[in-house]
Amino acid sequence: MIEIERKFLVKSKEYKDHATSKERIVQGFLNTDPERTVRVRIKGDSGFLTVKGKSNQEGTTRFEWEHKITVTEAEQLLILCEKGIIDKTRYTVPVGNHLFEVDEFYGDNEGLTVAEVELSAEKERFQKPEWLGEEVTGDIKYYNSQLGKKPFKTW
Amino acid sequence: MIEIERKFLVKSKEYKDHATSKERIVQGFLNTDPERTVRVRIKGDSGFLTVKGKSNQEGTTRFEWEHKITVTEAEQLLILCEKGIIDKTRYTVPVGNHLFEVDEFYGDNEGLTVAEVELSAEKERFQKPEWLGEEVTGDIKYYNSQLGKKPFKTW
Repeated sequence: MIEIERKFLVKSKEYKDHATSKERIVQGFLNTDPERTVRVRIKGDSGFLTVKGKSNQEGTTRFEWEHKITVTEAEQLLILCEKGIIDKTRYTVPVGNHLFEVDEFYGDNEGLTVAEVELSAEKERFQKPEWLGEEVTGDIKYYNSQLGKKPFKTW
Repeated sequence: MIEIERKFLVKSKEYKDHATSKERIVQGFLNTDPERTVRVRIKGDSGFLTVKGKSNQEGTTRFEWEHKITVTEAEQLLILCEKGIIDKTRYTVPVGNHLFEVDEFYGDNEGLTVAEVELSAEKERFQKPEWLGEEVTGDIKYYNSQLGKKPFKTW
């Protein structure tokens, strides 16, 4: 499928007051090449293997393919992953008719918080909450695949 | 799972007389790094996504994880793969108590034929047929992941 999403920095912790769920995510990459990232993720009781292509010029549209796997499989695959495992908490925050996913990073990416909203069309409008900061859609350095290799603390 | 296999060159076409099946295989790689190859394969009516780790020092043992996917999914993922799609016919050849898989390559690897036998233990003995040539177990240049980038015709 094709995924359309926009990504923003986050200005305050206010999103926490509106979050309907939070979940710890641990993930690594079997390939960090933006042309073909291959991600291994553990999220709660589930594992996922996800392949993403490069985004279009605007950075909003990206091919994404995902398969559910077991946590045991994900753990085995994480061992093979490149250095730089990503550890974060994801908050789900409804705003108007959309769901924002706000990722708070730990470890070498501590201090970075990023919000993403998935859209059904590139031009789709959505309500921007107070805590939303600068847009960073398409900026490769905010790809999780890059945050493993060049973490926020080294910027 | 851990896969134990040995790989050989093939000296003659005689294996064809003993093959019990043959199947066309088309495959590409989402990562060709021997530390973590990610393979997309179409084999008959099925698709597969396979992750392999690096082999041990002897080259016989390698972590392998495989997931069945649809041909449509495989076709979509092949578009994202690195250059150098592999196209080959695989013959299944029973010899004694073992099954050899003999791969005849096409395209830029035309002229190369390689036989593999899967074992249940590293020291397991098996019958070597007449047509079996030099052992190339663990030689990375015969990995399919490498044959896409540096095909046989360029050697």
